[in-house]
Parts: sequence; C-alpha cells; structure tokens
Amino acid sequence: MVVKNVIAVKNTSSWLNKVHWNEHGLVPVIVQQAETKDVLMFAWMNRDALEKTVEIGEAVFWSRSRKKLWHKGEQSGHIQKVLDIRLDCDSDVILLNVKQVDNIACHTGRHSCFFQQLVVTESGARAEWQIVEPVLTDLEED
Amino acid sequence: MVVKNVIAVKNTSSWLNKVHWNEHGLVPVIVQQAETKDVLMFAWMNRDALEKTVEIGEAVFWSRSRKKLWHKGEQSGHIQKVLDIRLDCDSDVILLNVKQVDNIACHTGRHSCFFQQLVVTESGARAEWQIVEPVLTDLEED
Repeated sequence: MVVKNVIAVKNTSSWLNKVHWNEHGLVPVIVQQAETKDVLMFAWMNRDALEKTVEIGEAVFWSRSRKKLWHKGEQSGHIQKVLDIRLDCDSDVILLNVKQVDNIACHTGRHSCFFQQLVVTESGARAEWQIVEPVLTDLEED
Repeated sequence: MVVKNVIAVKNTSSWLNKVHWNEHGLVPVIVQQAETKDVLMFAWMNRDALEKTVEIGEAVFWSRSRKKLWHKGEQSGHIQKVLDIRLDCDSDVILLNVKQVDNIACHTGRHSCFFQQLVVTESGARAEWQIVEPVLTDLEED
C-alpha cells in the first residue's frame, strides 16, 4: 500500500504496536460526534486503516464484508474528520471523536446507526425494537 | 440458568432473535453515560447477558476471559443502571445508555476506559499514546 511508503508512518510503528489487534488483525472502533457526543457508528480497523486515518485525518476503516480499506464517506460525501483518537485500558478498543460531514453517519441515511430502541412493557413480559430516528437522506453506498 | 426460568424472558425471545450474534454467540456493547454522554467502556454480551441486563435493569456482560456472566460493578460497587438500549443498523452492535454509580466505569479506577489519547507531532513524524485521565480510586476487581 502507498501508506507503507510514507516515512512518517514507518516512524510511528511503535504506537501501532501498542494496539492489541485481535486474531484477525482488527480492533473495534467506536465513532462519536465531537459537538453532540452522540455515538454515531461502530466499525473495525486493521493496522493500515489506523495508519491511513492518522495520515489523512479522516476515518478509514477495514470493511470486513468487502475485505478492503473503506474511507468513510468517499462515495456518500459523509466524511468523518478525526479530531481525537483514544485507546482503552486494555489497548484493544479505539474511540474516534469526529466532525461528521452533513451530520449523517449511517448508510441508511440516518444521523446515527443506533436508531433501534428496545421498548419493554412495564410488566417486562414483552419487548421489541422500535425505530426512533428518521431517515434524513437516501443513501445506497457509503 | 435461572434467567431461563423467568416467563417474562421466554416471552421476549423474538427481540433477542433480532440481534445478529457473531460466530461466538456474542455482540459488541458500547456503554455511554446518560448525563455526560461520555463513552465509558466497551464489552461483550451473549444472549443470557442481554436477557439478564433487561431483567434486572443493570449492565450484565459476558466476560470472555473468565468465560462467565459479569454483572458490572458487583464487586466494585460501580453498577451501571441501564436507561436505554439501542441496536445498530446491522443489528450486530448494542449501545447502552447508563447511570454510572460513583462515576467510575474503568477497572483501573478511572471515569472512562478511554484514557489513552493519541498525540501526533505536527510533522506527523511521531506519535504516542498519552494517559489523559486520572485514577479516581484504586480498584482490583470490577
């Protein structure tokens, strides 16, 4: 990959080694909107994705379905400008704080991917997932 | 498990079937503090953990290391009262909104588990993880 030829990236390998990548070479990533602190989405990164994210300052994930790097918003325009990157206590989960272009993060055209809310009856006898966020724009690709 | 004998839980199985459990029967869970909207931690749930969480209204996870249900805070007292449960667009990630007892979620005694911040030099030539949150209390078990 091109990113591997960037001297800056070679020099930052120690911080990449600090991350505990799972058995598939991936780390879970939580994306939070900086202004609202809304949790927008959840995705995965491999080493190249995290390197690329830091290099360009925009969220780049590893698409497990397409098995390739996924520059979030490259097709929809809903880029995520990365303002802050955190690593958790076990060094195996990443939290991105981002500026979400167009305020839409979900491939369904919603603000956040977490639009299904569990509603439980008072008796606790029944529960169901209800959609509680509107579609703001129609999207097919993200 | 006892939880399987609760009629209420039997009746809620359809909403549990809506969740796309991974190949290990688990789903990733993001825990967010209701008042501050801080992302506190990340963990995993299996079907029994999610059932139990809804049943008691407190976060119960699946400990992959101990291979058993983990009632968060049962030893430290740092219980998480669950106010809202969301499921993402692919139905394979859960977001919990909680009231965090004592405002401490991390087993290191910190408010949040995401206390390591990536600091990159302006040139981008070097980067390192820096601890940016204080330890509020000494904990050994959580």
